[in-house]
Amino acid sequence: MAEETTFRPGLEGVIAAETEISWLDVDHEQIVLRGYDLLELAQKCPYLSVAHLLIAGRLPDKEELTALEQEIAQETPLPQPVVDILAKLPRTAHPMDLLRTGLSALGPFDPDLEDHSSEATWRQSIRVLARVPQIIATGWRLQQEEPIVENDPKLGYSANFLYSITGKRPTQTEAAAFDELLAVYSEHELPNSTFAAIVVASTLTDLYSALVAGVASLKGPLHGGANEAVMHMLIEAKTPDGLERLILDKLAAKERIMGFGHRVYMHKMDPRAQLMKTALHQLVAGTPHEGLFDLCVRGEEVMHREKGLYPNLDYYAAPVYYVLGVPIPLYTPIFFAARTAGLLAHIREQYAHNRLFRPRVRYIGPQGLHL
Amino acid sequence: MAEETTFRPGLEGVIAAETEISWLDVDHEQIVLRGYDLLELAQKCPYLSVAHLLIAGRLPDKEELTALEQEIAQETPLPQPVVDILAKLPRTAHPMDLLRTGLSALGPFDPDLEDHSSEATWRQSIRVLARVPQIIATGWRLQQEEPIVENDPKLGYSANFLYSITGKRPTQTEAAAFDELLAVYSEHELPNSTFAAIVVASTLTDLYSALVAGVASLKGPLHGGANEAVMHMLIEAKTPDGLERLILDKLAAKERIMGFGHRVYMHKMDPRAQLMKTALHQLVAGTPHEGLFDLCVRGEEVMHREKGLYPNLDYYAAPVYYVLGVPIPLYTPIFFAARTAGLLAHIREQYAHNRLFRPRVRYIGPQGLHL
Repeated sequence: MAEETTFRPGLEGVIAAETEISWLDVDHEQIVLRGYDLLELAQKCPYLSVAHLLIAGRLPDKEELTALEQEIAQETPLPQPVVDILAKLPRTAHPMDLLRTGLSALGPFDPDLEDHSSEATWRQSIRVLARVPQIIATGWRLQQEEPIVENDPKLGYSANFLYSITGKRPTQTEAAAFDELLAVYSEHELPNSTFAAIVVASTLTDLYSALVAGVASLKGPLHGGANEAVMHMLIEAKTPDGLERLILDKLAAKERIMGFGHRVYMHKMDPRAQLMKTALHQLVAGTPHEGLFDLCVRGEEVMHREKGLYPNLDYYAAPVYYVLGVPIPLYTPIFFAARTAGLLAHIREQYAHNRLFRPRVRYIGPQGLHL
Repeated sequence: MAEETTFRPGLEGVIAAETEISWLDVDHEQIVLRGYDLLELAQKCPYLSVAHLLIAGRLPDKEELTALEQEIAQETPLPQPVVDILAKLPRTAHPMDLLRTGLSALGPFDPDLEDHSSEATWRQSIRVLARVPQIIATGWRLQQEEPIVENDPKLGYSANFLYSITGKRPTQTEAAAFDELLAVYSEHELPNSTFAAIVVASTLTDLYSALVAGVASLKGPLHGGANEAVMHMLIEAKTPDGLERLILDKLAAKERIMGFGHRVYMHKMDPRAQLMKTALHQLVAGTPHEGLFDLCVRGEEVMHREKGLYPNLDYYAAPVYYVLGVPIPLYTPIFFAARTAGLLAHIREQYAHNRLFRPRVRYIGPQGLHL
């Protein structure tokens, strides 16, 4: 039996997996995705190319990308019973409850469900990439009692995703910003949701079960929920001075300010936040949202001055979502949709090199009791 | 930053949690539940007392047990939309897909869903104990196109659970065996499903999300699926000699024999298996199933002689389920129903002493690539 190690709460600093998928190279402020810098990928490649890189292990050529887009388009419509299931959930349910239930329901409709071969999980991956946006948009529009929007064959993957939510065809600038947002959220080593997905996959359960565990995790306010909290704070603040007062008040009351700091990036800025800051700047230029950028910059300055903390991705992604017209309750579901690419990659890697996760505990309860 | 440790595949031997709930004391061949020996509890207490011990932290007195039974009875009926959702899933779906989806759908119907206080999670626990058996039985009977069985107020918790599945009121002996089976499955330290549940709970997501991750994990053939595989093997074998031949053939073909060995109990018999062996012996005495006991004993002898391996709980639980008339596809869902008590205890403990799970990886992929 292996010697037991010191207990590390939250497994902080513990290596839980070997992976060829990604790595947070903190010293070089770089997020490495299969050898590439995530920022370079997000700026130069569409989201679906990054998804192909993650899931299939290499960037697609032009023909492969076109084929992937076409396959996704074919697989997009949800089975009608899954739409009916979403309609049965309470109108007031959290969109992550809808996503978790819809994705769970989708599993038994996939003809490849119990096949873990690389070919079968690739086909499942295409269906998941096609249908997760549909679950999110359909669930939301059912809750709002608004008509479901069918994809427009003239729009690409990300533009259709945004269109299916808002019901408005995005401009090229908007579609590009949303696509870049999906790319920067696509993969991030081993956050809680990815860890949960590979832990579950290691029982050789099906791919949808492992993804559902990821949704369950990402719903948590310490994980995916942060971007929603950021936006509520920005809206409450209204002006740069208002945000400064609000942050100072919260700090005085020892409340946590969401959108700042990250367990891994302790002393440097999340490189993805910088990219979203630039995207926000471009997106609001010459629009009524111009003041939102100055507001965010003030918050960044105040938090650095007061606490030495830098913004993380959620801080600048939230206002990008907002300007794109995405309803606040959908920020976390869209984070999941983007991260689906990374999760699928990790689940397939787990199947290919599996070892069941089964750690031990340190028991600190009573002993020797009898009835 | 904490120093990084050696990579241990599957986190074998790594301590991932401090807990007051349970511990596999391998040296003393004892499973400790809040200070008591699980075997003593299973033999002397009804399942609901063990569930109370696990979730509330202490054994109930007579009045508390009666109150718990009454509260569970009141909370038993499923919301109609959840029944409708189960009916929308394919008739051929794995019952674990139904359970995962039904439990996920149940979340937003719980009025305490987003309240993590001890009082609220206790109320949620009662609803979950009441309704998980209902999801399993209702889903199964919908798939079989048989009428749903309403609980009989004259029967206790375990007897009603069995009745709701089979449609036949169990004898006292049968009800007692099923109750003991639920008790022995109620908790087992940190197997994959419990680990998945606390990993997910550590984002402070809701209790149903954490339980859903447990279902997702338990569906895997390396975890909950083993008991079904055991029963298929016993049925295929028909006789003790048949089983001996089947096992020898499988070993010669280097196939894995399910129901033997356990990562933690490497060189001793799972103490729970011994209890189920006794239960099986009593249950089949004087019935047409008497030969099933001799069959199982032969398998145990062959595996010990050939591989030095001992049966685990699944090996003797499977024939107990079988004799009780439980359909084979429900063995894993019932395992989950029993384990719900332990999972609820661990999720509540995680909320009370939370630290987000966020381990690291060792990156072994390419580096320095550019577009």
